[in-house]
Amino acid sequence: MVRDVPLIGVFGAGQLGRMLALAGYPLGLQFRFFDPAPESPAEPLAERVCASFSDEAALQRFAAGLRVATFEFENIPLHALEHISSAVPVSPPLRALAIGQDRWEEKRCFQSLGIPVPAYAPVNSRSELEEAVDRIGLPAVLKTRRMGYDGKGQATIQDERGLDSAWRALEGQPLLLERFVPFDAEVSMLAVRNPSGATSFYPLVENVHGDGILLTSRVPATCVSPELEEQARRYALALLLALDYVGVLAIEFFVEHGVLLANEMAPRVHNSGHWTIEGAETSQFENHLRAILNWPLGSTGLRGMSVMFNITSVLPDLERLLRIPGAHVHLYGKAPKPRRKLGHVTITADDQETLHQRELELRAVLHGQAAGDSALGIR
Amino acid sequence: MVRDVPLIGVFGAGQLGRMLALAGYPLGLQFRFFDPAPESPAEPLAERVCASFSDEAALQRFAAGLRVATFEFENIPLHALEHISSAVPVSPPLRALAIGQDRWEEKRCFQSLGIPVPAYAPVNSRSELEEAVDRIGLPAVLKTRRMGYDGKGQATIQDERGLDSAWRALEGQPLLLERFVPFDAEVSMLAVRNPSGATSFYPLVENVHGDGILLTSRVPATCVSPELEEQARRYALALLLALDYVGVLAIEFFVEHGVLLANEMAPRVHNSGHWTIEGAETSQFENHLRAILNWPLGSTGLRGMSVMFNITSVLPDLERLLRIPGAHVHLYGKAPKPRRKLGHVTITADDQETLHQRELELRAVLHGQAAGDSALGIR
Repeated sequence: MVRDVPLIGVFGAGQLGRMLALAGYPLGLQFRFFDPAPESPAEPLAERVCASFSDEAALQRFAAGLRVATFEFENIPLHALEHISSAVPVSPPLRALAIGQDRWEEKRCFQSLGIPVPAYAPVNSRSELEEAVDRIGLPAVLKTRRMGYDGKGQATIQDERGLDSAWRALEGQPLLLERFVPFDAEVSMLAVRNPSGATSFYPLVENVHGDGILLTSRVPATCVSPELEEQARRYALALLLALDYVGVLAIEFFVEHGVLLANEMAPRVHNSGHWTIEGAETSQFENHLRAILNWPLGSTGLRGMSVMFNITSVLPDLERLLRIPGAHVHLYGKAPKPRRKLGHVTITADDQETLHQRELELRAVLHGQAAGDSALGIR
Repeated sequence: MVRDVPLIGVFGAGQLGRMLALAGYPLGLQFRFFDPAPESPAEPLAERVCASFSDEAALQRFAAGLRVATFEFENIPLHALEHISSAVPVSPPLRALAIGQDRWEEKRCFQSLGIPVPAYAPVNSRSELEEAVDRIGLPAVLKTRRMGYDGKGQATIQDERGLDSAWRALEGQPLLLERFVPFDAEVSMLAVRNPSGATSFYPLVENVHGDGILLTSRVPATCVSPELEEQARRYALALLLALDYVGVLAIEFFVEHGVLLANEMAPRVHNSGHWTIEGAETSQFENHLRAILNWPLGSTGLRGMSVMFNITSVLPDLERLLRIPGAHVHLYGKAPKPRRKLGHVTITADDQETLHQRELELRAVLHGQAAGDSALGIR
């Protein structure tokens, strides 16, 4: 209807893409998704190209008329982005994606910027694994360098007897051994930068994972000093500048003895930022769109206190969820399946006591629902 | 993807429909719109049937598979709703729509429930107009009984000399003469009810109109005592019960000498409730959907203080808008046109001083943009 409506192309039509579109329509944007999956969460609410990432004609159809292209998951083949990048600006930058796709490159990047990381070593053979264990010690975690997410592609090695099974589970691809960090807490920093160089940072988020999957995110973090907050921002800023980054960047840290250790980064909007929809002045989704369009960034200030619970594996009783005051339900339109993220609920409140009360109600609904299993997807 | 995703049918694919869909996707709903207009704000983000309201085959296509149907504007032909109501539940009830479509019926309904209204009289001829003026006095407002909105179909009569021009402007259709109310303030009440009988009420909203079009809505209202708030809720509850109402109902009142006088009602989500997206725990759009699905209603509690500005006639400088902290921009994807609502901006803040400061910034952007005209669409 309006001429020159900016059309945003998004690789991946999962829940992150869906929430990008929901945040972008109010800004007057329109969306086109590219995803090989036949059904996807973003599909009902925008245009979609359904094809393989290697289908060049489909990539060209996708790129036609886009103002800018972005992506909502990082395991996308680089060549697909490279193919369209001559025709359409792509943000975040491909270099950030390439580094984020390889745990070894990622760790090296962190280190080169003075960001502390747990001891690590690349592993390409059984003998290299033993050398790495000698150097790093046990317990340690063996990880695939590529394609890992939600705890997939990882094996913890508690002692020498665990070496064999870890090796057998993951051999045949480039691996990385990392010191196992008995962390006090896990936190993440969501940072955003636009091409003009404006940067903004959300407060540190305190995360709890179970079985490799994010369970809850809490803001303000209960475990964080102003010094740690400041340090996380410095690290995030260093990454944004080094990568000439555009968009939202998520960085996950362990907190061990009061020190931040970078675990990994995701060059995209991130599950640990979903609370920003209700809990911040501007959501991570809106700020990602503002950034890639080189628009002014929105305030990352808090609106009260928030805690987000992922809904994983099974759908809880919707009506009971809707009865909890201050609970904001987000379903992704996905069929239930073990370990699949189906939605999330963010609880907001103005004070700690109200938040705690609402959180207890929410936990009762989420746990009560999954008789014999955990509603949070943990076995 | 999920079986049994509730599909909601919406008559009208304007900005209210668009915001219903944006609120409904996170609840796991899907949408189908019916609108005769070739392009419409809700079109990019859902299925749409584009046909005349008298096209029975199109109405049947629209109705197929719907969980429930609703409407987002009240000047929809009743027969279209009646046609599908044998196949699909329609909420709000047709009776509320029928009454809301006729200013005379509306006033009689208010009166029958003990809700005060300005003096009024139906007018079907020039001689009836003179009798009505004798009884009600001047100044008065002559209005069409049907199809009036945004100040259309109205003529104010200041004195005897204005009778002729008002009559000539509106004659040929059923009319109503109303006493002109020199109000102290205009307020509106957004109420919601589900079929189980649960009711909920948002705080009274203070509205400012210009040239018949809503300019701003403010919450909390600055002009309202707890007694007036309580009275408005009693009136709204009486209407909800009398109409066996389901969904969001908006009622506009004048405040004159500390007394509420009902002006009109709208059996739908309403422009004076747009602030609820960021300013209330649950938006009017989400609560309308919860109500028509007979789901538990969401909290209508405030999140800070809010003021909403309509964007009318011309689009302001988007980047300047985006620089205002706490400003939430909503564009509807419509081409600019005089007196057309193109979007709105809601400013939120935790205290009056911050709100005032942000409001000044917003006014500067909205007024600065429309050189030689008013950005608010007033001539």
